[in-house]
Amino acid sequence: MKRYERFADEIAELIRDGVLAPGERVPSVRQASRQYGISPSTVFQAYYLLEDRGLIVAKARSGYYVREQARRVLHEPHMTPRRQETADVAVSELAFSVLDSLQDPETVPFGSAFPSPELFPLARLSRSMAKGLRGMAGSDVLKDMTAGDADLRRQIVLRYTLKGMPLPSEELVITSGAMEALNLGLQSVTSPGDLVAIESPAFYASLQILERLKLRAVEVPVHPRTGIDLDVLADSLARLPIKACWFMSHLQNPLGASLDDDSKRELYALIKRHRVPLIEDDAYAELHFGTTPPKPVKQFDDEGLVIHCGSFSKCLAPGYRVGWVAGGRFAEPISRLKLMTTISPSVPAQAAIADYLQHGGYDRHLRQLRHALETQQRQMLDAASRYFPDETRATHPAGGYFLWFEFPERVDSLRLFRQARKRGISVAPGPIFSATRGFRHCLRLSYGHPWNPRSEAAMATLGELIDTF
Amino acid sequence: MKRYERFADEIAELIRDGVLAPGERVPSVRQASRQYGISPSTVFQAYYLLEDRGLIVAKARSGYYVREQARRVLHEPHMTPRRQETADVAVSELAFSVLDSLQDPETVPFGSAFPSPELFPLARLSRSMAKGLRGMAGSDVLKDMTAGDADLRRQIVLRYTLKGMPLPSEELVITSGAMEALNLGLQSVTSPGDLVAIESPAFYASLQILERLKLRAVEVPVHPRTGIDLDVLADSLARLPIKACWFMSHLQNPLGASLDDDSKRELYALIKRHRVPLIEDDAYAELHFGTTPPKPVKQFDDEGLVIHCGSFSKCLAPGYRVGWVAGGRFAEPISRLKLMTTISPSVPAQAAIADYLQHGGYDRHLRQLRHALETQQRQMLDAASRYFPDETRATHPAGGYFLWFEFPERVDSLRLFRQARKRGISVAPGPIFSATRGFRHCLRLSYGHPWNPRSEAAMATLGELIDTF
Repeated sequence: MKRYERFADEIAELIRDGVLAPGERVPSVRQASRQYGISPSTVFQAYYLLEDRGLIVAKARSGYYVREQARRVLHEPHMTPRRQETADVAVSELAFSVLDSLQDPETVPFGSAFPSPELFPLARLSRSMAKGLRGMAGSDVLKDMTAGDADLRRQIVLRYTLKGMPLPSEELVITSGAMEALNLGLQSVTSPGDLVAIESPAFYASLQILERLKLRAVEVPVHPRTGIDLDVLADSLARLPIKACWFMSHLQNPLGASLDDDSKRELYALIKRHRVPLIEDDAYAELHFGTTPPKPVKQFDDEGLVIHCGSFSKCLAPGYRVGWVAGGRFAEPISRLKLMTTISPSVPAQAAIADYLQHGGYDRHLRQLRHALETQQRQMLDAASRYFPDETRATHPAGGYFLWFEFPERVDSLRLFRQARKRGISVAPGPIFSATRGFRHCLRLSYGHPWNPRSEAAMATLGELIDTF
Repeated sequence: MKRYERFADEIAELIRDGVLAPGERVPSVRQASRQYGISPSTVFQAYYLLEDRGLIVAKARSGYYVREQARRVLHEPHMTPRRQETADVAVSELAFSVLDSLQDPETVPFGSAFPSPELFPLARLSRSMAKGLRGMAGSDVLKDMTAGDADLRRQIVLRYTLKGMPLPSEELVITSGAMEALNLGLQSVTSPGDLVAIESPAFYASLQILERLKLRAVEVPVHPRTGIDLDVLADSLARLPIKACWFMSHLQNPLGASLDDDSKRELYALIKRHRVPLIEDDAYAELHFGTTPPKPVKQFDDEGLVIHCGSFSKCLAPGYRVGWVAGGRFAEPISRLKLMTTISPSVPAQAAIADYLQHGGYDRHLRQLRHALETQQRQMLDAASRYFPDETRATHPAGGYFLWFEFPERVDSLRLFRQARKRGISVAPGPIFSATRGFRHCLRLSYGHPWNPRSEAAMATLGELIDTF
């Protein structure tokens, strides 16, 4: 990262944390240059970047100010208490109708689970693919199918090491995206009928997978900013024969909440005490807005209890279908299960990503991607504050590409989903994120696509529809 | 196909069917030219090709003769009756140790489930990959992830149509190889504890999958040439609450047996009468040695009861992990199950195969592949007749790349497997093909790799080891 980018990120973090409030003046170029020991031109470059990202505005002859974010700042949503202790899961139909709503390319894709492919270096990746395939002997094809591409494995292990989490190579299984990793992890530690602790609200695919595997959900409430309620979890683990936990400790989908390191340590202590494996879905690991990459619960794992699932689908190569799992003590059963179900992710796709990680400029791409997402988040929050009713609450996550909106109780997000669909807008209604069909007055919207006049108009339309309730 | 290739195939079929016996003179060039209405040079070209494939030999001044295949022709193995009516399945450990035995690249891979990658147009495929990726818009990436690559879908539907089996496009789901197709098919029609009719001996992965899904096996004996015993099947279907059948009607793994069309019709009538879905594993569809491609049981399916699974892994693109399922009335649940487990096979891999099917010369490649496999089969059978004991029996399948050997009862193939492994030879012992651990004196050997002096030496070593029993 260049010096001016690093400085810009530091200022952005001060703004995000409220240390620099909206309307407040940011340090002058001279002050900043002296205080941070950088050249004035570096400060200028950083401020241009921040202006570009919409975080500060220049006022003629008086310097830079933190942008008055919007007409008003939306309040944080409430935390929803648990409605029932355990639940059978049946959310698939609803989730599939959201997927259906995205089939029409003319639809405004606020309901999408994927960021826009325009944000990814697809052309560069296909050059990496060509290079990777040229260097591949026929015999590699079969070898890579059981063990995974050796270069890719090395690169993934290296990235764990750089984060301060050395990973024994035997723990690593390359999978067809995080989705397969999660499926394999869950199957390797549960049997039909078992209880699994999940978040509420939760990523709907986890609900679908529980449903498919005939597992029962113990829903643990998630605070919209600080993450899963550890007291409720401790209580559930103490009283119920829970066989596995499945959580996102970082940029939780749909809330964008993250546990801090102390809470992660506490969470690990809990599962260790009860000897319950944790399936840690870390699909958004690289999409943090701040400068310091957060570490997962896996960092504390000294007994191989954490099954840590990652993917390139949301940060580099959508459609390549390459992810991985650091399977802890369950790595071997997971690997075998994979050989019995899909055998291997596509070998050329693995080779492409391996080459890209080595030569493609991954970290530069990630910085651009994070900046784009942060800008788009602000644009969507601005639009929401303009068009949505006053009582609307919204998350302000420090990464990812989802916002969670809480409306007054009278708003029925399922009806809203159907009405919006007729107007060419896809949204993800609250109940698909819950085994107990809660969150009826909530909505998840994705800002994963570059903002444009159609996005703006769609927000206005949603505002009008919400007003009719 | 060129005229001389077609004529060569016709003569090869006469040899295979025994119409032209070993040592017998094939029609002279003049006779053939007159009788088939082709030019003498076309006949010459065909005979050169047949000589090259080892089917005929030239004798000075007296023309061409059918090759005296070998020292002697091995007899067909026996058909093994069923040992018990239903069985829990636990074959994984053993199957995985066979996989393990293949990890060392120095091993002679007779135990491999894949043909040699050298037999496939990998360089041409990677050009197709580059072309396919160049033509792909970012938005296609997400679209192709749910629905599958549109060109690939069209090409697959077209190939069904050309075989005289029009396929409604909605029935088609693109999968991560046939392995995922089979898994999804089975899961969509069964629940844990259900009975599933499978072949005996059966492809060991099917046993592993049953084991994983906690399904119980009803083993139906397979004749080494004519395929599954329909009387036993009829009886089982009448008496047991079988929820699904999983069969390979063509080039069955491990026996290489194929049902003829009348038997396929009868099989379909049976499952239709009992309303039991058939999961038809047709992974070797393109690997027939004869000129006429056989049609699957699916050809008779007028009620959507047949879940027909295919793949490009064994005939074109190993490691790309692209297959499909024509799911009949179960297509929608199968498609949904896929979205919940792996979402999609790799989009670039799909694009590469789509381009190759349109522009790469697939049918020419398939002809070369079939010729190579047929030659390799003869080489392995010749070696077996030289090195294996006199009582050895062997299949002579009309396609694929597996031979099934039956030795005298005293030969323990599990011990043989371990001994051979120490000598650097991987083999697949009989018991991995049975839920009831039968076939202890049998062995599956793959001729999927080009024959070389090491293969010859390995057969001699196996012969020596077998002699010690």
